Amino acid sequence: MKAVILATGTELLLGQTLNTSAHYLTGKLSSLGIEVDYHITVGDNPERVEAALHKALGCCDLLVTTGGLGPTKDDLTKELVAKVLGLGLELDPASLEQIKAFFAKRRGPMPAGNEKQAYFPRGAKILPNPIGTAPGAVIEQGGKTVVILPGPPFEMQPMFENHVRPELEKRLGRDAARMRVRVLKVFGMGESAIEEVLGDLMQRSDPGLALLAKRAEMHIRLVARSPQKDRALALLDGAEREIRSLLGDKVFARDEETMVGIVGRLLKERGLRIATAESCTGGLLGAALTREPGSSGFYLGGVVSYANAVKEGLLGVKQESLDSVGAVSEEVAREMAEGVRVRTDADLALSTTGIAGPDGATPEKPVGLVYIGLASREGVQARRFQFYGERESVRQLTVQAALDWVRRLLGPVGKENFVS
Amino acid sequence: MKAVILATGTELLLGQTLNTSAHYLTGKLSSLGIEVDYHITVGDNPERVEAALHKALGCCDLLVTTGGLGPTKDDLTKELVAKVLGLGLELDPASLEQIKAFFAKRRGPMPAGNEKQAYFPRGAKILPNPIGTAPGAVIEQGGKTVVILPGPPFEMQPMFENHVRPELEKRLGRDAARMRVRVLKVFGMGESAIEEVLGDLMQRSDPGLALLAKRAEMHIRLVARSPQKDRALALLDGAEREIRSLLGDKVFARDEETMVGIVGRLLKERGLRIATAESCTGGLLGAALTREPGSSGFYLGGVVSYANAVKEGLLGVKQESLDSVGAVSEEVAREMAEGVRVRTDADLALSTTGIAGPDGATPEKPVGLVYIGLASREGVQARRFQFYGERESVRQLTVQAALDWVRRLLGPVGKENFVS
Repeated sequence: MKAVILATGTELLLGQTLNTSAHYLTGKLSSLGIEVDYHITVGDNPERVEAALHKALGCCDLLVTTGGLGPTKDDLTKELVAKVLGLGLELDPASLEQIKAFFAKRRGPMPAGNEKQAYFPRGAKILPNPIGTAPGAVIEQGGKTVVILPGPPFEMQPMFENHVRPELEKRLGRDAARMRVRVLKVFGMGESAIEEVLGDLMQRSDPGLALLAKRAEMHIRLVARSPQKDRALALLDGAEREIRSLLGDKVFARDEETMVGIVGRLLKERGLRIATAESCTGGLLGAALTREPGSSGFYLGGVVSYANAVKEGLLGVKQESLDSVGAVSEEVAREMAEGVRVRTDADLALSTTGIAGPDGATPEKPVGLVYIGLASREGVQARRFQFYGERESVRQLTVQAALDWVRRLLGPVGKENFVS
Repeated sequence: MKAVILATGTELLLGQTLNTSAHYLTGKLSSLGIEVDYHITVGDNPERVEAALHKALGCCDLLVTTGGLGPTKDDLTKELVAKVLGLGLELDPASLEQIKAFFAKRRGPMPAGNEKQAYFPRGAKILPNPIGTAPGAVIEQGGKTVVILPGPPFEMQPMFENHVRPELEKRLGRDAARMRVRVLKVFGMGESAIEEVLGDLMQRSDPGLALLAKRAEMHIRLVARSPQKDRALALLDGAEREIRSLLGDKVFARDEETMVGIVGRLLKERGLRIATAESCTGGLLGAALTREPGSSGFYLGGVVSYANAVKEGLLGVKQESLDSVGAVSEEVAREMAEGVRVRTDADLALSTTGIAGPDGATPEKPVGLVYIGLASREGVQARRFQFYGERESVRQLTVQAALDWVRRLLGPVGKENFVS
């Protein structure tokens, strides 16, 4: 199955909005084994959108559109898809009720403009939008599938997961030559180091391997193409085993798994509660730990001790330590971690203190120098890291390194012992 | 001048790499007043790249390509541009020398494959690449301009700034009808409400207005087209005044300004220090306040009191309050804000407590119910908010609403008085 993604929205063509939807959808379609041949991005201009729809339908089996479902007269995706496919538009009363309910909940009447959001090309399967007022749609015609999705990622993504993915999986049952993709996620090694360690494996073609640098991790992408699902999966499994034997526990996750997801699961399995004391990350570590629902099961909270006075006042960091070795030091990282652990009665506590930059560096303490502390009921340790990159990269790498330490401590790899 | 951006690279069509180059180039071209009509992304497939080149050259004055300049046989952008324009390829000896020097510096001979990086369509102006081995090129033919750039952003961006921008500015001198863009950012009003209040203004064509929903704010984009720069700016200024008079201080920022940037500036101007006590936002508010350099000038830190025990232990929230009205309440928001303000000796303190969802709701306390507290040396207040959307939207909206309260308190609008 060959796909085209068509993103509409003038904001995408003014450099105002990064087209994350095309990226998201491409990743999701690839993981389903659907090859994306093109992305096309076009402004809210009827002639150009229509031309792009013709072009896309001429060369693919699956067309996914995002955007152009709003209440204004610029929003024309459904109207133009209907025109190109030769279909009329029909009111869906259930969608209209839902849109009215959306406004009723906010104690207002539905503006007249929003009524058009309840009209769809005849015969479309309607995809409800519990978050906004723009339902999506799936249309089948002449062996082609058109999926119409809203533009805002926080509306589009749940709609894809809950409604589009199951529809596509039904269709894919019939499609033999699927591409299968697996992603292994690595922390603590750079691109060149991974290439060197993997050696000949990088040259193999089935599965083909590619490296991709993300802000705070590396991804190794494995792509297998085979008409038989079992054979493709066996190829991926074999390559994954080889990679893991070479990279060891630097491989921290696969596919949708995330560092914080794994750490949360490990903490819950062991019945442990964690706390945080953050300086250079300013709350990012807590924000990461609480991003997913259920985080109250393992995260207690902590202190953002940005100013030294807060390190002393709320964490009990010693003034002598701050005066002698400074806030960015192994000693202060230890005192922060132990301070927050004791004050919250946590089983584990992480601390971060470093120079995120671009200001604040000294010859001895360059930008990217970070100390991370980890306290447990048995004792406390701190480690020194030197990260590279701009401010937000240093902060994200710090969060990732802190979580990775907990993963190694609690993970099944069992190689690390906690020694105080 | 109308432009198309063509990005080539299979990694862009596997969802692994976000196409930041199209976003970067679009922003740069827009700021030069060049309208981008399309982005097209296509894999390293000769037929599809050739088809895309034909399509792009058929509808634009300026085509900018990224990617496909590497040493491998998949890298075919220059070859295909030459073919489509009917030009031969010619060796550029200076480029060859530069590529050889690149390898010599790394103590290795130039691999044979890299020689092709020194060939260009006949008559091209060559753009040196001091960072990598892929020079770029500018070609003019029949009134059209083709700019060929490398894929890696850290090679492409300096090449654009140093070589392409000056070339384009020369050409634009002759081009009368340049586009000028302004963005006004709004918090606290939805898309339909803004449309209703702006009324006829939305229908105007010079400047043209468009609304764009972001996760926690709305953007109003104004586009003016005029041969005279002064006239275009006057049109934008006039429309901005009208919009501000209708929306008042709901308009919080313009163009590159951000909510947190404005709040930071206001705090610094007044010499005030702020602290935070976060429950449902889990550290996001602190992370936002510390995102930009210089935040230590106004942010002290605070407490992430995710668990009730931490609200009591580190903030002095009363157990009676937690037992009687619960953690998500006006009373607890007030106690959190005042608790952290006193403990950090801050001038101002913000607190957040709410149901981010999807779990934890009760009939009385639905998902999206959030209390925000604001304490000053004069007293403490809390406000109730009902947000809509999934977990991360509720968290982001909470951060934005908290910052917006401080903006209104300190801002030049002077409409809000702090009453305890």
